[in-house]
Amino acid sequence: MEQNNKVGRSAGDKEFVREITPKSVDFSQWYIDVILKAQLMDYAPIKGFMAFRPAGYALWEKVQEQLDRRFKETGHQNAYFPLLIPQSLLQKEAEHVEGFAPEVAWVTRGGNEILEEPLLIRPTSEAIICDFYSRWVQSWRDLPILINQWCSVVRWEKSTRPFLRTSEFLWQEGHTCHRTEEEAEAETLQMLEVYREFLETEMAIPALAGRKTEREKFAGALRTYSVEALMSDGRALQAGTSHNLGQHFAKVFDITFLDQDDQLKYAWQTSWGLSTRTIGALIMVHGDDRGLVLPPRMAPHQVVIVPILSKKDGERVLTAVRALADRLKAENIRVKLDDREEYSPGWKYNEWEMRGVPLRIEVGPRDLDNGQVVIVRRDSGKKEFVAEEQLAAYLPALLETIQKDMLKRAIDYRDANTRRGSDYKEFKRIMEEERGLFIAPWCGNDECEEQVKIDTKATIRCLPFGLKPEGGSCFACGNKATEAACFARAY
Amino acid sequence: MEQNNKVGRSAGDKEFVREITPKSVDFSQWYIDVILKAQLMDYAPIKGFMAFRPAGYALWEKVQEQLDRRFKETGHQNAYFPLLIPQSLLQKEAEHVEGFAPEVAWVTRGGNEILEEPLLIRPTSEAIICDFYSRWVQSWRDLPILINQWCSVVRWEKSTRPFLRTSEFLWQEGHTCHRTEEEAEAETLQMLEVYREFLETEMAIPALAGRKTEREKFAGALRTYSVEALMSDGRALQAGTSHNLGQHFAKVFDITFLDQDDQLKYAWQTSWGLSTRTIGALIMVHGDDRGLVLPPRMAPHQVVIVPILSKKDGERVLTAVRALADRLKAENIRVKLDDREEYSPGWKYNEWEMRGVPLRIEVGPRDLDNGQVVIVRRDSGKKEFVAEEQLAAYLPALLETIQKDMLKRAIDYRDANTRRGSDYKEFKRIMEEERGLFIAPWCGNDECEEQVKIDTKATIRCLPFGLKPEGGSCFACGNKATEAACFARAY
Repeated sequence: MEQNNKVGRSAGDKEFVREITPKSVDFSQWYIDVILKAQLMDYAPIKGFMAFRPAGYALWEKVQEQLDRRFKETGHQNAYFPLLIPQSLLQKEAEHVEGFAPEVAWVTRGGNEILEEPLLIRPTSEAIICDFYSRWVQSWRDLPILINQWCSVVRWEKSTRPFLRTSEFLWQEGHTCHRTEEEAEAETLQMLEVYREFLETEMAIPALAGRKTEREKFAGALRTYSVEALMSDGRALQAGTSHNLGQHFAKVFDITFLDQDDQLKYAWQTSWGLSTRTIGALIMVHGDDRGLVLPPRMAPHQVVIVPILSKKDGERVLTAVRALADRLKAENIRVKLDDREEYSPGWKYNEWEMRGVPLRIEVGPRDLDNGQVVIVRRDSGKKEFVAEEQLAAYLPALLETIQKDMLKRAIDYRDANTRRGSDYKEFKRIMEEERGLFIAPWCGNDECEEQVKIDTKATIRCLPFGLKPEGGSCFACGNKATEAACFARAY
Repeated sequence: MEQNNKVGRSAGDKEFVREITPKSVDFSQWYIDVILKAQLMDYAPIKGFMAFRPAGYALWEKVQEQLDRRFKETGHQNAYFPLLIPQSLLQKEAEHVEGFAPEVAWVTRGGNEILEEPLLIRPTSEAIICDFYSRWVQSWRDLPILINQWCSVVRWEKSTRPFLRTSEFLWQEGHTCHRTEEEAEAETLQMLEVYREFLETEMAIPALAGRKTEREKFAGALRTYSVEALMSDGRALQAGTSHNLGQHFAKVFDITFLDQDDQLKYAWQTSWGLSTRTIGALIMVHGDDRGLVLPPRMAPHQVVIVPILSKKDGERVLTAVRALADRLKAENIRVKLDDREEYSPGWKYNEWEMRGVPLRIEVGPRDLDNGQVVIVRRDSGKKEFVAEEQLAAYLPALLETIQKDMLKRAIDYRDANTRRGSDYKEFKRIMEEERGLFIAPWCGNDECEEQVKIDTKATIRCLPFGLKPEGGSCFACGNKATEAACFARAY
């Protein structure tokens, strides 16, 4: 039998899997192997840039679909702002320019002309959007402004890793204006909760919500909040951030409105973003040595049907699986029928496992005779026979079960790898050997935070909501503890 | 009563409409007035760039939704390729670089470093995508590749007009690879037909499909096809293009595959695109002196409900319209309830007419007593009373009627302004005075085409499918006519 020369020459599954480095051997290599082999991305001819191949972009389309619905349900509208920002606008907010100027790409020529003022490709859009908002906001009646943008941004990164840190990435950025500080804070926290709930419900990723320290907050923000997820190698990943910008930008961009009391006031603003790095999280939280494992709600294909074709019964089986695929599609199940004849069933099993499809249905002539099919779960490998007539009713429930089981496994892992304590020596050992999250009493001091990073490479991921410091002293410097801080090595 | 100081201080409709220049007085100014007043866009601080405000972006979201469905139904998948392209890749295809180099934006600095090789922001993505395809295509089994990308592109334009020609615009670009020339040609024509049908069905815009001349074809293509629409000022607008790229790019980017016969062959390619300029077409085809007129299938809000509120009956009316809005939403009608108390009903009528909402429902206390509502069509101004209980059943049919009526009006206008003939003097007069489309026998000669443009500012929009030249001589130069060509002044 002929085989595609790019994806393994043998139908045997051992060789197939051998192309993915086991997680336990080299987690970083496992990650790269999986995303290349599952054709999620490919490296661009420019360092740090990548192409999202259809299988990878389909995951981003699911993120967009599910987040966009949540944004609209909470009253937001989409808009689109220019890709390029005049240098002078970036420079208006002092902290903002300091934070972003070192990592921007500069356009200096347009057509055949040298530009009078260099333009930067947006690394984030506060500066250009505030310029518009200064004209759009005039009266209290114009508020709130609740706008979101889906776009690509460029940040010239020195060290990159596909999905997790790339010089160009895709994201959404919300930018809102409000009449009062309270409204802005409520919006900031609402959108953080939208992220947390989205990660949990759709991605089956439990995330810890909290406030960022001064050192880790967004350049120009009053306060930054984040949701932090734990990858299966024990490192944390910031999966989304929500910023209360206060009046910092409103003051330098002159975003003022005449309030009902006839007073001219500065608007209160927020911004919040979630990017394609969440796809990296999805891979690292759920994937295994056989490749991707997608939660059913995120899976572009929820079910793959693989017919067992023989010369004698080929037509009969094909007719049956085509009818089955149509029936399941009619139930809004996302079904892929793999009826390619140039690959063996065993080869297909391996390929679709590697691509993370939650359920595989195998149908052969004997199954047809018995009025049943074989179902195999990707997450657990569990195999069962199901009567074909019950399938359309059974599958949606099974997909929900898989979704719940995957979330539970991720929560169990997270819980088993979250420690609380105040023994700094033990903390150092854990960050070196086991990693995971470590919640400790902390003094709130910037230099202390820096020293912990030097000692252990761990940073404060967030100050988790609702936690108080256990014990009165900072676990690192011994001064008075004011916060319970969650430390981890992070992506 | 207080009024928003940005959108007219009076509740009277005369003043409201006075802010839009009549079409007949100055079509270009009418166009600008409408898009600014309906808040579809705003000018950016960089010349030629603009922001898509929520009302404008919502139209693009409708385009995306409706085209994306058609792309997927025809077997395409979405992907995303890098924003930046190395100069050396653009330069590979000679015609392509000649066509695009003069209008690209150049990135010369990244972070704090001067780049060794300048990067251009994509003006279109053939060059970068072909670089990936040269690796992704190896065997006949990898074909066809059917990929589409939604993104923004930058072309440094000297003279710009919102939506129609901007230095940055949003579009989709399809890029496909095939085994044979026939397959590529079939794909090219299929996607052109997708555009034509989309424009007709969703946008209520009749478009003429045909082939571009050598002079007007895409830089690097073998053949370009386009769909051309007629605006209500008699000028044509190219609404979408589909290119058969032949093997031009495959040869310079080395996109080869081993075919089933064991021969190494170059792939056959296509590309096709449709952009935010179609929003300009939507405005110019259907708009009137009161503002936008949106076909129901494109309208973000299909129906606006305006309650007539009085102190005495306010609560009763509000309760009723809220229930009505919920009922219509349950029928999948896109309803906007305008229950703002700071604006009068008359002011709202004008605002929503200006914003082009296809249907307005007015509900006052007396209507409630009579169990009816008032319905007003945006396209015809026709007003009718409808029993409230019949509304949910009546509205979908009425929206379809409006859609059909709008298409019919556009077809009637197009037909009334499409002429066939071979009298060059008459053609020159028509291009000067009445414009519209003019179909004439033409010789196929490049210099003749150029002379017509010098004489009349008209260009060949396309060589319409299925038309043969009437008469044996070119209407312009008198040489043998080989084509029936459609001429027009164009955007």
